[in-house]
Amino acid sequence: MELGNAKGTKDIIPEQKILRDSIIEKIKKSFEVFGFLPLDTPALEMYDVLASKYAGGSEILKETFKLKDQGNRDLGLRYDLTVPLARFMAMNPSIKMPFKRYQIANVWRDGPIKLGRYREFMQCDADTVGSSSMLADAEIIALTENIFNKLDLSFEIKVNNRKLINGILENVGVKEKNFNSAIITIDKLAKYGISVVKEELKKNKMDNKDIEKLLKIITIKGTNEDILIELKEKIKNKNADQGIEELEELFSYLNLMDVKSVRLDISLARGLSYYTSTVFEAFLIGNRITSSVAAGGRYDKMIGNFIQSKNEIPAVGISFGLDVIIDAIYDERKIKKTLTRVYIIPIKTLNEPLKLLKKLRSQNINSDIDLNERGISKNLEYANRYRIPFVIIVGENELKLGKFKLRDMISGEELMLSEKELIEKLSNH
Amino acid sequence: MELGNAKGTKDIIPEQKILRDSIIEKIKKSFEVFGFLPLDTPALEMYDVLASKYAGGSEILKETFKLKDQGNRDLGLRYDLTVPLARFMAMNPSIKMPFKRYQIANVWRDGPIKLGRYREFMQCDADTVGSSSMLADAEIIALTENIFNKLDLSFEIKVNNRKLINGILENVGVKEKNFNSAIITIDKLAKYGISVVKEELKKNKMDNKDIEKLLKIITIKGTNEDILIELKEKIKNKNADQGIEELEELFSYLNLMDVKSVRLDISLARGLSYYTSTVFEAFLIGNRITSSVAAGGRYDKMIGNFIQSKNEIPAVGISFGLDVIIDAIYDERKIKKTLTRVYIIPIKTLNEPLKLLKKLRSQNINSDIDLNERGISKNLEYANRYRIPFVIIVGENELKLGKFKLRDMISGEELMLSEKELIEKLSNH
Repeated sequence: MELGNAKGTKDIIPEQKILRDSIIEKIKKSFEVFGFLPLDTPALEMYDVLASKYAGGSEILKETFKLKDQGNRDLGLRYDLTVPLARFMAMNPSIKMPFKRYQIANVWRDGPIKLGRYREFMQCDADTVGSSSMLADAEIIALTENIFNKLDLSFEIKVNNRKLINGILENVGVKEKNFNSAIITIDKLAKYGISVVKEELKKNKMDNKDIEKLLKIITIKGTNEDILIELKEKIKNKNADQGIEELEELFSYLNLMDVKSVRLDISLARGLSYYTSTVFEAFLIGNRITSSVAAGGRYDKMIGNFIQSKNEIPAVGISFGLDVIIDAIYDERKIKKTLTRVYIIPIKTLNEPLKLLKKLRSQNINSDIDLNERGISKNLEYANRYRIPFVIIVGENELKLGKFKLRDMISGEELMLSEKELIEKLSNH
Repeated sequence: MELGNAKGTKDIIPEQKILRDSIIEKIKKSFEVFGFLPLDTPALEMYDVLASKYAGGSEILKETFKLKDQGNRDLGLRYDLTVPLARFMAMNPSIKMPFKRYQIANVWRDGPIKLGRYREFMQCDADTVGSSSMLADAEIIALTENIFNKLDLSFEIKVNNRKLINGILENVGVKEKNFNSAIITIDKLAKYGISVVKEELKKNKMDNKDIEKLLKIITIKGTNEDILIELKEKIKNKNADQGIEELEELFSYLNLMDVKSVRLDISLARGLSYYTSTVFEAFLIGNRITSSVAAGGRYDKMIGNFIQSKNEIPAVGISFGLDVIIDAIYDERKIKKTLTRVYIIPIKTLNEPLKLLKKLRSQNINSDIDLNERGISKNLEYANRYRIPFVIIVGENELKLGKFKLRDMISGEELMLSEKELIEKLSNH
């Protein structure tokens, strides 16, 4: 038998998992501070749900893990948390709107493996279903700012609007049926540069004059206000008007909410076809991670389509890429190697050490004891390997004195302490 | 398209998920207090690992979800957290022992659906690898007591020893090759009663006299000490001697650790074939849930076999069934319906409400605001539906006074408060 991990998956060892849990805890707390409630959906979904034409589309379906249950039903592992949310909303039509939910869970994509890309990875999503107000979009962007501030990362949130993009495409003569492929191409500008985008637009049979016109518009620079003023002068059609109006409303709310890290980028498009209005993507500044660390937008049609409702069910949401965020803040020096606070080394006695252990644990002090009757030096080496900051030695001498020897594993300092002093010292930190 | 959950899976709505998260948090904290560190392994494993002859065995393999990746590799969804731990240990031979890890994660079994049994469910496991001392077993039983005490559940932990069972079987004339099937039969005593066990033993060609002798032994009653004394008199062989000695050592440690909820039950066997020594199972007392809520034992051979090591790698662990525990403490009245503390209703103004919202959130007070420009009564209904305990109303009158109206949604009491008083009041609880 070959031993190993399934391709594209990894184990997360304790020192990494401790860091990971602390980041998840921060994101979870921010979601809750912003009024989002937790929802859990299963990893396994009926394949038909994942393959619905209003779901993620054919590109992502190619990467979906497919399986059958013993009743020969077609199932799939979820590839995102948005489609399960749409399915949940469809099954619970009486839920009170707006429904603000978050979900932190693994998703699976059977795609190519690259550095930092896995086939099993975690997403942290927050979505507001049932509000068409730009206030909901502003709130999600404020949430994003809040989270990256808490994680102590420098960042920028790029924002755009799909209606505006559609208006621009209309203005330069792209036919509506070609909007989607043009959007996918435009979205590559930041990543692959202007010549790649030109080449791809040419392939899609757009003529050179129109390409130049399009590129001139989507590369307009300036403050958010300047860009909107220039666009208003240059482009006049219903789509663009609506997009600009929504952006102005969004910026006014962000201003009231004191959100500062937002930059309008007209070339930001986002690949997924279901976005209908605001789109946004967060990037880190001055970090070796250059790909986006969170992304989302407004998708007003998807859920209504899922429900086969005549009415739109507006929604806006964001997804944080946990693994890429962890890569960004991974710093060997900062990692807490353990959660265990103290390690007891008994010498030829167990009665007192076990009583002390019970006492420490009852005080919620993470504590451990030698299980293997090893000598002091082996035990100190063990505590050191797991970076346990304190060791208590209990031997004949200590028992006679009615005290315990506490060793600080970092400074090497040793103190003889009573049980009470010991607990005080260990709780203090 | 048919909308629904995959068979045997369920959504966990916010009010349930909030309860669930609070229980998980308690279990996690206890694991850490007892010196266990978190490890995460993927849901997807290579099928060969799950199907290894030292893994869960053929019964569980029938219930394993099997799938392929795009490279046509055979994969499976993990059916427990023990086999992945064995695989991890095999891949990381230099890890410092004893290695104490916990993992809280979903597992999948494509089995029959019964009340409370799902195909995707959560396990909470703690295991100590690399110690053969009964102290490690005692610690895991103390951990179990600690967790059920924290969850405020009345419980009893039944304990037995596989070596003792083997000794008893040997004593009544069962051949060694039939030990395993006899153990699986004996394990049914508590659940199905004596006649079912008799019938099954007969089918396995055990003669009536031996059956009577066996049943007489495994139904010995008394205090833990009484039972051991009686067994020592009646059964004399190496297996039984070792089992009794281990149990005596275990009870002496449990005594030192002040663990009181343990009862020796010689008919407790546990179905899985990999246990080699201590086995235990926790049951609730006075609860409608009669199935076990946690179970585990010592398995000294499995990991070494996985590694194909000549040396044994001793291990002992426990698994808590989260869903059954939640069923046991599910109490409609006790459930917190929301995490959101306060809901702001703006009346024809947004400036001040958004500033206040930002202020509250920056103080880590879980806060929400009307996103849909609804009237007061619709908004109060909304806050009520989500059981949000406080509402703040901000209108013309309040703005003039420079105060905010805080409504207690439970008592109906309304107060006019300054921002400072408001934050104090909302943080206080």
